[in-house]
Amino acid sequence: MTSGRNTKTPEDWWSTSIIDMQPGMIRYRGYAIEDLIGRVGFPEMIYLMTRGELPHPGAVKLLEAALVAAVDHGPQAPSIAAARMAITCGVGINNAMASAINMLGDVHGGAGEQCVRLFNAIAERLGNGHATEQRLAEAVRAEVRVQAEQGVRHVPGYGHRFHPRDPRAPRLLELVDAAAKSGVVSGRFAAIGRAIEAELAAAKGHPIPMNIDGATGVVYAELGFPPPLCRGLFALSRSVGILAHAFEEMQSGERNKGPIPRHLIWTYTGPPARELGDGK
Amino acid sequence: MTSGRNTKTPEDWWSTSIIDMQPGMIRYRGYAIEDLIGRVGFPEMIYLMTRGELPHPGAVKLLEAALVAAVDHGPQAPSIAAARMAITCGVGINNAMASAINMLGDVHGGAGEQCVRLFNAIAERLGNGHATEQRLAEAVRAEVRVQAEQGVRHVPGYGHRFHPRDPRAPRLLELVDAAAKSGVVSGRFAAIGRAIEAELAAAKGHPIPMNIDGATGVVYAELGFPPPLCRGLFALSRSVGILAHAFEEMQSGERNKGPIPRHLIWTYTGPPARELGDGK
Amino acid sequence: MTSGRNTKTPEDWWSTSIIDMQPGMIRYRGYAIEDLIGRVGFPEMIYLMTRGELPHPGAVKLLEAALVAAVDHGPQAPSIAAARMAITCGVGINNAMASAINMLGDVHGGAGEQCVRLFNAIAERLGNGHATEQRLAEAVRAEVRVQAEQGVRHVPGYGHRFHPRDPRAPRLLELVDAAAKSGVVSGRFAAIGRAIEAELAAAKGHPIPMNIDGATGVVYAELGFPPPLCRGLFALSRSVGILAHAFEEMQSGERNKGPIPRHLIWTYTGPPARELGDGK
Amino acid sequence: MTSGRNTKTPEDWWSTSIIDMQPGMIRYRGYAIEDLIGRVGFPEMIYLMTRGELPHPGAVKLLEAALVAAVDHGPQAPSIAAARMAITCGVGINNAMASAINMLGDVHGGAGEQCVRLFNAIAERLGNGHATEQRLAEAVRAEVRVQAEQGVRHVPGYGHRFHPRDPRAPRLLELVDAAAKSGVVSGRFAAIGRAIEAELAAAKGHPIPMNIDGATGVVYAELGFPPPLCRGLFALSRSVGILAHAFEEMQSGERNKGPIPRHLIWTYTGPPARELGDGK
Repeated sequence: MTSGRNTKTPEDWWSTSIIDMQPGMIRYRGYAIEDLIGRVGFPEMIYLMTRGELPHPGAVKLLEAALVAAVDHGPQAPSIAAARMAITCGVGINNAMASAINMLGDVHGGAGEQCVRLFNAIAERLGNGHATEQRLAEAVRAEVRVQAEQGVRHVPGYGHRFHPRDPRAPRLLELVDAAAKSGVVSGRFAAIGRAIEAELAAAKGHPIPMNIDGATGVVYAELGFPPPLCRGLFALSRSVGILAHAFEEMQSGERNKGPIPRHLIWTYTGPPARELGDGK
Repeated sequence: MTSGRNTKTPEDWWSTSIIDMQPGMIRYRGYAIEDLIGRVGFPEMIYLMTRGELPHPGAVKLLEAALVAAVDHGPQAPSIAAARMAITCGVGINNAMASAINMLGDVHGGAGEQCVRLFNAIAERLGNGHATEQRLAEAVRAEVRVQAEQGVRHVPGYGHRFHPRDPRAPRLLELVDAAAKSGVVSGRFAAIGRAIEAELAAAKGHPIPMNIDGATGVVYAELGFPPPLCRGLFALSRSVGILAHAFEEMQSGERNKGPIPRHLIWTYTGPPARELGDGK
Repeated sequence: MTSGRNTKTPEDWWSTSIIDMQPGMIRYRGYAIEDLIGRVGFPEMIYLMTRGELPHPGAVKLLEAALVAAVDHGPQAPSIAAARMAITCGVGINNAMASAINMLGDVHGGAGEQCVRLFNAIAERLGNGHATEQRLAEAVRAEVRVQAEQGVRHVPGYGHRFHPRDPRAPRLLELVDAAAKSGVVSGRFAAIGRAIEAELAAAKGHPIPMNIDGATGVVYAELGFPPPLCRGLFALSRSVGILAHAFEEMQSGERNKGPIPRHLIWTYTGPPARELGDGK
Repeated sequence: MTSGRNTKTPEDWWSTSIIDMQPGMIRYRGYAIEDLIGRVGFPEMIYLMTRGELPHPGAVKLLEAALVAAVDHGPQAPSIAAARMAITCGVGINNAMASAINMLGDVHGGAGEQCVRLFNAIAERLGNGHATEQRLAEAVRAEVRVQAEQGVRHVPGYGHRFHPRDPRAPRLLELVDAAAKSGVVSGRFAAIGRAIEAELAAAKGHPIPMNIDGATGVVYAELGFPPPLCRGLFALSRSVGILAHAFEEMQSGERNKGPIPRHLIWTYTGPPARELGDGK
C-alpha cells in the first residue's frame, strides 16, 4: 500500500518518531524507559522528548533554571485564578489544570515564544560572524522597526506591569553568562537580549529591563528551542503553580468560587428594566 | 473589616500561602525566586510548590523517577491523540495541551491517585508497628473486599491492557527499595504494593503484575503525597509527552486531522434515509 | 473480518447512529440536512441529535424554555468570570468558551443532572399508577433519606445562595403545568418536584423554594432526558451567556485580566522570608 | 472612588451590560427572565444576549437556520472524535464538550469568521450604493488579491475536502434570498458571496462551490454579527453534535478509547534501539 495521503493506513496515520512500543517494551527516541528511569532527570527527559536527543549536562542546567523561574505569578494571573475557581466547581484536578493552561495564550504566555522569534530574527540579520556592538544595535533597531510596521506595539520581553525590575531575569542571565563562558552555549542571544534592552532604554529615555519572558527567551534561544516549543515549555513550568494553587484551594471548602467575595455584586451598565413588546 | 465569609476583602478572597509578591520581589513558600533559580531543580520546585517545603535529596530522586516514568504512552492514548489532532486545528500549543490534559480523568489518569488511596487505606488498617506478611495479606484482602463492595471492579495499579509486564514498574520499585534501604523512605508502601500483587496472583491464579500506576502510586505514597496531588503529578508528567507529540504533529502540515485516514468513512448504524413529516 | 473488539475495522471503531455522510450528502438520524434547515428549529435539532427522533411540538416549547432559562448568572459565576478573563489572554473565543464550559462540573452545573436522578428515583418508587399525596410524600422522604445516607448533604434543586426565591423556577413550572394539562407531558415530575419542596419546608420549618436546577430538572425529567444529557443541555444553555460575556470583554481592551483590580495584591499567608540552607 | 483603571472597585472590575441581578431578580439586557421564558425562543435569546436587543422575527429564522446547519460533521472531525474519546476517560460530559469545543480553532471552526471578515471588506469597498455586477466582481478580485498578499492561500468559504457540493449551502442561500425579498435583510452579502463563487470558478476554470462556512458567513454578515461572534455561534452550533456524540459514546462501555482499534500499533519512525552513554 502506498503511503500517499489518500491511502495511508491507520498505523501510518498515527506514525511518530517519539515512542516505540511493543508488549513489554517502551522506548523513547530509541532509549528503553527502564534505562531512563533513575538515570535521566525530568528536564533531561523534557529535552529528549521534545528535541529527540539527550542534552549536554550544561544545557540541562539552563533549561531547568528556566522551568523553575516561571512556575507561578500568583492569583492575579488569570490562569492561576481560573485553576482555583475551577477546583471548587466539582471537576477533577486535571480539568482545573486544563482550564488554566488553556489561558496561556499570546498575551498570557506567548511572550517567551515571541521573544525567541525576535531574537532569532536579529540573529539571522547578523549572520554567523562576530557581531560588534554597533552591528548588534543596528540589527536590533531594524528588527524592532519591522515589528512595529507589522503592528507589534510592545516589544515582548521587556518591562513589566508589576515589577519595576523583574527579579527573575538577572539571575537567569547570570546562568547563561556562566554557560557561555564554559562554552555550553554561544552567548549570542544573551548579547542580543541585552542589546535590545539598551536600545529600548535609549529610545524611551528610561530603563525597560528584561523580564521573565525575555530572560527565558534568551535561555531557550541559546538552547535552540523552536519558538512554538517555548510556549509549551512555559506551559509545563506554569502548570506547577497551577497545580499547587488548585490543590491549595481544594482545602478551602469553597463551592463555586467566583472572582470576588460573594457579598459584592457587579456593576450593571446595561439598559434599564424594560418589558417585552407586543406579540411576546 | 472582619474576615468572615460574608465580608471578606478581595485580597483575602484570594489569599494564598504559596507565593508572596511585591514590586520587584517574588517569594515561593518564603524563598526568593532569585535564590531558587539555578540552585533548586525542577522536581524540587514541584515538591516545594505543592507541599510547602523543600524535599530531602533522596526524595527528589524518587519523585523525579516517577515523573520521568509516565511521560508518554503513544498516540493510542486518547490524550496524546487529542493533542496531535488539536494542533492541526489552528489553536495554540497550550490549547492543544489543555484539550489533552483535560482527558486525564478517572479512567485515563486517575489510577495513580486511586492506588495511593488504596495503599493509604491498607496502611491505616496496619497501624504503625511492623506488619508481618500475614497481617499485610489480611489487610490487603480486607481492603480489596471493601472496594469490591463499593463497586470497584478492577484493583487499580495492576495488570495492563497492552503490556503483560509493564516495563516501567520494576525499575521504579528498585529505586524505592534503594531509598528504603538508606532510610529515605519507610518502604512500607512498597511492601503493601507487593502484597497486593501477591494477593491478586493468588486470587486469579496467574500473575497480574504491578503497572505504572501502581508503581508511581508506591512512590507517591512513600513520599506522602495526598491522592489528589498524585493525579496532578501524573498530569505534569504526561504533559511532556503531550507537548512533544503536539509539536511533532505541527511539522506534518495536516489540517483538521481526524482519528483515521481521510479516505475512510465511519460506519453508519442509524435509521435509514427518511423524510420529514407533514407540517415541516 | 469479525466485528469483535479485538479486530474492529477503523470504520467500525468510529461507528455512529447520529450522522450518515457521503460526498454531497449529510443525513442526521436519517433526515437530509437540506430538509432540516429552515424547517426544524434549533431546540428541535438539539432534541433530534441527542434523542434520535424529532420531538412533539409541545415538548419543543418546554425544552426551549429550559434552555432559555439557564443562559447566564453573571460574572460572579466562575464559568462566566473564566470566559471574561480568558478572552483577554490572547486565545480564540472558542478557547475562552471551552475554559468556561470545562468548569460546569458537579458543583457548578451538575445540580440539574442530580435533580433528574433524584426525581427518577422517586418516580421509580412510585411505580406506574396514580400517586396520592401521601404516597408521594413517603416516596420523597424515603429517597431523600437514602441520599443522606450516601453522603449527599444538600438536596439538589432547592434553595439558592443568592435568591430567596429563584425567579426562573415558577415560570418554568407554569409551562410544565400547561403542557401537562394538554397531555404533552404527564406532570408526574412536576408533582414530585413540588412534593420535595413541601417536604423540605416541613423538615426545615421554612420554605426552601425550587431553584433553576430543580425546575429545569422537572422539565428534562418530564421530557425523558437521561441525566448525563441534562448536564450537557445545561452546558449548551450556559454557553450562550459564556459567549456573550467573552465577546463583551473583548471590547474592553484589557490584557491578562485577573480576578480583582490590578492595584490589589492578594493576602499572603505562608512562611516568612527565608534563606535556602547549605548546599544550595 | 474614581473609576480609573488603577483604582477600580471589584464591582466595577466586573461590570457588564448583559445581566442585572438582585436577590430574586434577574434581568437580561433589561428584560426580566420570567418574562423571557416561554415567550422568547432560544435563537432569539442567543441574539439578545450577544447583540443586546431582540431580533426581528425574520432575522431569527435565518439565525436559527445557520445554527441548525452546522451542528455536526461526523467522527472524522477532530472535535467530534475528541468528544467521543474524552467521555471514555472518566471525565464529565461538560469536560468532554470542552475538550472538543477547544479544537474549533482557525482551521477547524474559524472559516465562518474569516468569511464574514472577507465579505465585510468587500462590502466596505463597495460603499453604500447599488453595486453593479462589474463593480462587485472588481471589488471581489481586489480583496482576494489583498488576502493573497497577506499569505491567505485558500479563500475561506468555498470548496470542500469531502463534498463536491456542500449540501448545506444552497438551502441556506435560499432562505437568505427569501429574507432579502421580504426586506428582512439587504441581500448584499448573498450577492457578494455569489460573486466570489463566480470569480473563483472563473479563476480556477471549474466550480468551487460555496460551503457551510461561506453560507453561514453570508447569513451572519446579513445579520450584522461581528466576526469573532461568528466563531462563537459556530461553536454553539457544533456543541450540539459534540454533545450528541459524547452521549452516544457513553453507551459503548469503552474505556480510554483511542483513535484506532486497539490491536493496531502506530508506525514508529524514530531512531533504532539505543543505549544510554557513559555516566548514565
